Amino acid sequence: MTHDEKLIKVCIGLAIKGKGMVSPNPLVGSVVVKNNQIIGKGYHKKFGEAHAERNAVLDAEKKGFNVKGASVYVNLEPCAHVGKTASCAEFLVSKKVKEVIIGMKDPYSKVNGKGIEILIKAGIKVKTGILEKECMDLNKFFINFVTKKIPYVTLKIGQSIDGNIALNNFESKYITGSESRKYVHKMRSEYDAVLIGKNTAIKDDPSLNVRDVTGRDPLRIVIDWNNSLKQNLKIFSDDNKDKTFVITKKSAEKYKGKKNLLFMVKDDRIFKLKSILKLLHGFNVNSVLVEGGSVLFSQFIKENLFDDIYFFIAPKIMGKGISPFDGFEINSLNKTVDLKTEFTKRIGKDILIKYKNCLQV
Amino acid sequence: MTHDEKLIKVCIGLAIKGKGMVSPNPLVGSVVVKNNQIIGKGYHKKFGEAHAERNAVLDAEKKGFNVKGASVYVNLEPCAHVGKTASCAEFLVSKKVKEVIIGMKDPYSKVNGKGIEILIKAGIKVKTGILEKECMDLNKFFINFVTKKIPYVTLKIGQSIDGNIALNNFESKYITGSESRKYVHKMRSEYDAVLIGKNTAIKDDPSLNVRDVTGRDPLRIVIDWNNSLKQNLKIFSDDNKDKTFVITKKSAEKYKGKKNLLFMVKDDRIFKLKSILKLLHGFNVNSVLVEGGSVLFSQFIKENLFDDIYFFIAPKIMGKGISPFDGFEINSLNKTVDLKTEFTKRIGKDILIKYKNCLQV
Repeated sequence: MTHDEKLIKVCIGLAIKGKGMVSPNPLVGSVVVKNNQIIGKGYHKKFGEAHAERNAVLDAEKKGFNVKGASVYVNLEPCAHVGKTASCAEFLVSKKVKEVIIGMKDPYSKVNGKGIEILIKAGIKVKTGILEKECMDLNKFFINFVTKKIPYVTLKIGQSIDGNIALNNFESKYITGSESRKYVHKMRSEYDAVLIGKNTAIKDDPSLNVRDVTGRDPLRIVIDWNNSLKQNLKIFSDDNKDKTFVITKKSAEKYKGKKNLLFMVKDDRIFKLKSILKLLHGFNVNSVLVEGGSVLFSQFIKENLFDDIYFFIAPKIMGKGISPFDGFEINSLNKTVDLKTEFTKRIGKDILIKYKNCLQV
Repeated sequence: MTHDEKLIKVCIGLAIKGKGMVSPNPLVGSVVVKNNQIIGKGYHKKFGEAHAERNAVLDAEKKGFNVKGASVYVNLEPCAHVGKTASCAEFLVSKKVKEVIIGMKDPYSKVNGKGIEILIKAGIKVKTGILEKECMDLNKFFINFVTKKIPYVTLKIGQSIDGNIALNNFESKYITGSESRKYVHKMRSEYDAVLIGKNTAIKDDPSLNVRDVTGRDPLRIVIDWNNSLKQNLKIFSDDNKDKTFVITKKSAEKYKGKKNLLFMVKDDRIFKLKSILKLLHGFNVNSVLVEGGSVLFSQFIKENLFDDIYFFIAPKIMGKGISPFDGFEINSLNKTVDLKTEFTKRIGKDILIKYKNCLQV
């Protein structure tokens, strides 16, 4: 690992601290280096607050350093636009830093090279593409959001080794172990929203919050086409009920009674997930963790709208039951949906396998 | 690892060379050590031929060494009984060796400490229980055979991650990749027999032989209660057809035409796997690899007669299809069949998970 790579890695480590707090903004960390010494560190802590580079520079100044002539490391191109905060590129120019070392260019149309342009025009040396793959992976939600205009979608499936997410009597609590549930709670704290279908809301009556780890709760979104779900479900009645949104068709409005109804534009049609994801994009939902059930999982497969899948596999046989993709059927093995294994991991007694969608970029 | 353990490990390495060739005998390797030097090595090569200790001693003598006063290492207690070959314990006594270091006692009733007794009575120093766990694992087929009087049973399941072993139209070739098939062929070369059900014979028409690696073919056993399978199936018509056995009910004899019919004693009853396994024990079948399909897998689960399961998991989604245990159903998650994960391994694009049966000793 080169000197530059080591320092971008430090930036990534700082950026991660913002997980779950900065969306729809990217995760960014930054360090200021002078005379081979890190004199300032910063990261983007919360949506609407100061960006990483500014925090790093201010940290250095607070400690009595002059950042003039310093090197600034940052995992994402400094912004060029004035949004909730002033342009970071202009800010670095005003501070007369010597060089800026950047993990990856910002794909967001309002930046996308313009930040780098500002720096270069001001005579600042710029290097880019340092640990680019790691930087892209760190901000996969953000990149997806600004390039595809829909949220990043992860399917989370808890099943027995023989592929059952529930018994035929719908019993599904708990197939996987407590360590897997803890892992899922951590994931929830990092995704903007958790999405479930109507049947899962009825059969499982889940809380979908973050209990087993420290972290913020995600939005809870349920697809309920006819808005017929009972008000006494946990997602509609617990302390977090303001964070629950119902996706329904417009003509279902008459059945309302729930606070947060998100209507589909195309009324009364069979729902298309693509439209739902676009709707969520409009609400700045950057990442969605889909937690069931079989109908919803199958629809994501049919429309090819998932980015990755986490299978939590319990070491048990359930026999004849409900499989994760019961609503999807093919007539030839040539038509299987092929996945790419990213990693496997033992989680308590369970095994986690993470797959990526082969057909997604 | 102690000095003794290192040498027992050498014995295990030698013993493994006999895999697939010595059944129903155990896998045994031996080394002779004198003045801190290995002067002879041997293993049991083939059923009916010389045992390991004899081969190791003869190897030393062939090289011009005198084994008097030497130490003999062997992963299994030397035999006390005169079978196809003379008693190894007596042989070692006659050679006046100083000590015998043994991995594990032989659980076979005709030995079971009697070999050690012969050695001790002759004034030979004996140590036992060196790398015992590894030695037991090496001879798990043999131990099972002599203690339980039924073969060791492994279920081999090739499935998609969502738990399908075939589509609903029965297509199942090939779900897993070529590397997994190669691994299975290696397994076949080490198991005495491969077992399938009638439906698998019809739908897949498999060869069940060892093609992708070097090794001997296993016996092929098919359960065909009414003896109604067609003669043109590969297992009945290829060059290996003499190694195919049909398990059928006695009254089905009239439909014969196949060479190797194994009849169940209890005529005309619904088959019990326990009886079939006892029957196979009588034919010296020490280990069985069960390759499908769903009905047979389910029956092994219902009767709790499997020792371990190898799941080869392909990175693909098949949707609604045939699951490995479709013939098994429970009405509560308290009744799942719990497994113990032994290892996971990447095999080409697939993932192999090996589980042990929690309820088997």
